[in-house]
Amino acid sequence: MVGIGWIPIEKENALSLKDMGVRAARMALEDAGVEMIDALYASNMLGSELQGQKHIGAMLADGLGLFGIEALQVDATSASGAAALRAAWLSVASGASDFALAVGVEKMGSTEDATPILARGLNQEEEKGETMVTIVSRLMDLYFKNAMRSGVSEEAMREGFAHFAVNSHQNGMRNPDAFLKKELSLESAMNARVIQGPLRLSDCSPVCDGSAAVLLCASGMAGSFSDHPVQLSASSCATDRFTVGRRRDPLVLSASFHSVEKAYRQAGITPRDIDFFEVHDAFSIMAVLSLEACGFAERGKGWRAGTEGTIYPGGKLPLSTFGGLKSRGHPVGATALYQACEIVRQLRGQAGPNQVEGKTALMQSIGGAGTTILTHIFQR
Amino acid sequence: MVGIGWIPIEKENALSLKDMGVRAARMALEDAGVEMIDALYASNMLGSELQGQKHIGAMLADGLGLFGIEALQVDATSASGAAALRAAWLSVASGASDFALAVGVEKMGSTEDATPILARGLNQEEEKGETMVTIVSRLMDLYFKNAMRSGVSEEAMREGFAHFAVNSHQNGMRNPDAFLKKELSLESAMNARVIQGPLRLSDCSPVCDGSAAVLLCASGMAGSFSDHPVQLSASSCATDRFTVGRRRDPLVLSASFHSVEKAYRQAGITPRDIDFFEVHDAFSIMAVLSLEACGFAERGKGWRAGTEGTIYPGGKLPLSTFGGLKSRGHPVGATALYQACEIVRQLRGQAGPNQVEGKTALMQSIGGAGTTILTHIFQR
Repeated sequence: MVGIGWIPIEKENALSLKDMGVRAARMALEDAGVEMIDALYASNMLGSELQGQKHIGAMLADGLGLFGIEALQVDATSASGAAALRAAWLSVASGASDFALAVGVEKMGSTEDATPILARGLNQEEEKGETMVTIVSRLMDLYFKNAMRSGVSEEAMREGFAHFAVNSHQNGMRNPDAFLKKELSLESAMNARVIQGPLRLSDCSPVCDGSAAVLLCASGMAGSFSDHPVQLSASSCATDRFTVGRRRDPLVLSASFHSVEKAYRQAGITPRDIDFFEVHDAFSIMAVLSLEACGFAERGKGWRAGTEGTIYPGGKLPLSTFGGLKSRGHPVGATALYQACEIVRQLRGQAGPNQVEGKTALMQSIGGAGTTILTHIFQR
Repeated sequence: MVGIGWIPIEKENALSLKDMGVRAARMALEDAGVEMIDALYASNMLGSELQGQKHIGAMLADGLGLFGIEALQVDATSASGAAALRAAWLSVASGASDFALAVGVEKMGSTEDATPILARGLNQEEEKGETMVTIVSRLMDLYFKNAMRSGVSEEAMREGFAHFAVNSHQNGMRNPDAFLKKELSLESAMNARVIQGPLRLSDCSPVCDGSAAVLLCASGMAGSFSDHPVQLSASSCATDRFTVGRRRDPLVLSASFHSVEKAYRQAGITPRDIDFFEVHDAFSIMAVLSLEACGFAERGKGWRAGTEGTIYPGGKLPLSTFGGLKSRGHPVGATALYQACEIVRQLRGQAGPNQVEGKTALMQSIGGAGTTILTHIFQR
């Protein structure tokens, strides 16, 4: 990975969808000093519904003035950015491209309510009428009840979960490009407004506008285009049963498990080798379940990583080092490419006040309610 | 390519989007005797708008009972099926997959009018209010006027273009799975209802429901899964300026030219080596422009391939051998995978009454008004 680019996340960006994407893409190309690429893979979840615009790959190639190149769009709903990153990786790995750019862009902050469109990522044959919130709050309720049955107090659980939001906000406050740059105290998080069941506002990521891009090239050439190239050591994807209610155990993110297993194998590493983790904390319960599926906590114990401080900078496994989906923001189709840019900044030693230690990072991106999960491992 | 599957094209298929896709995918897997795959790449253009369903890759993997595999969706509007085929090719070529399945599915025939949603594949910043028909009819008008300026009669042009529709219908009549299985005489085609300018009903492909799938595996293994594996010798993609009016010469499909040049180079062949051509005859003018861009006719002369009989079975370059988009039908996100299945049937010698001679075939797929064009070359 030789180039990264992103724009600050805002509630509503005044630029058009195209101009936002072009700006992030240009920055990634300039970062590497590259003018021509072979392929562009775009990710965007809601452009057709909210801006009436399809054909996002061609739109961005045109906006960049790059004619004749390959340009396609890749989709995995809220994990689309990771799907674009994977497409770029496959393109370079297959030898089809020397330079492949992944660009994610989303413009959803000005929408009254994107909820019903986001819900189209759920199984419409069996989950019609559900939303991400109704499903995720049920998962959280089940998780809480299981823990409470084994003697944990609700207060302790609420505290554990709240730490995930507190950590994200602490990190986001130091990131000038984050959307929610405000402090969140443990007490406020624990007592935040209830959305549904045990799900509180502090458990949910915000709707916003953003765009981010990453430029990949073959490993052998990377040294010529970056003083500190970062290796994408693994890329994988796995799916689970589409309908959450049909999963054997809905509290086990089996797509996370299968995807991370493939990635660990590709990179030849184990969970112990991971120094920090850009987790898909669209909802804190999803971050907790990912920790468990990826081998960082036992089943039903992931929340303790909050209470024990594991997830904070300086902890054993820092999460969401630039604010994560919760504080940096979650412009769905672009989110994973923000994660990727942030990891590259960390591994280059360019993370400023957000810098954490380490040379191996994990990134996970979730499409729908755990249905499609992509894992990437980055190393310097 | 070791497995192919498709369902008959109908105006309205009674099956759900998922069940249509699963049926085509199962047929492709059974054709190869393969039960487990590594990756599934889905193509579908209108599911979110017409069925309220996103996440088509995961939906199909779930419908097939294949959990833990990679499943993503790839998009290039009306060329999406070719984008899924390319994704499968890159996945196998990179070594990431042993078996990769491309599945296209579209359910649009029951819609009152898909035109405004299809038009989202055009540049909404500069072509708002346009549709495929308004743009394509202007291209055709320009093409006619150029030819007439050089002394060709309008009658001669109309006859040339009409042969493209007549050929497609003749071939489609012999294909039990085609949508428009009715004969079209040259006279009827020449005098068909005017849609706009020189564009007549006989120049346009129909809206319908369909699904098709193709299974790829690494070349070395193909002999174990098929008695007559077909080699995908080249896969490429190129884009043009998004806004048709900004192209230097809108009658030169430069994305077709760039994409086919890349493909010829990959396969190490020239236009003379192509035995038949599954062309993207969504509109006859696009087929004519593709012939010119791919090196089969001089600029402004492609229509003569109709009059001269080049494009009919037994001609020098048979087109649309199972009816093409015009007669077999154009369920947009699935179309290119029908093209791929048909080429495999030809190269296997399993095309029945549609059989043409040859061992090298070209396939081209157009997204939007020539903005994104993918080329694939198949050989036995």
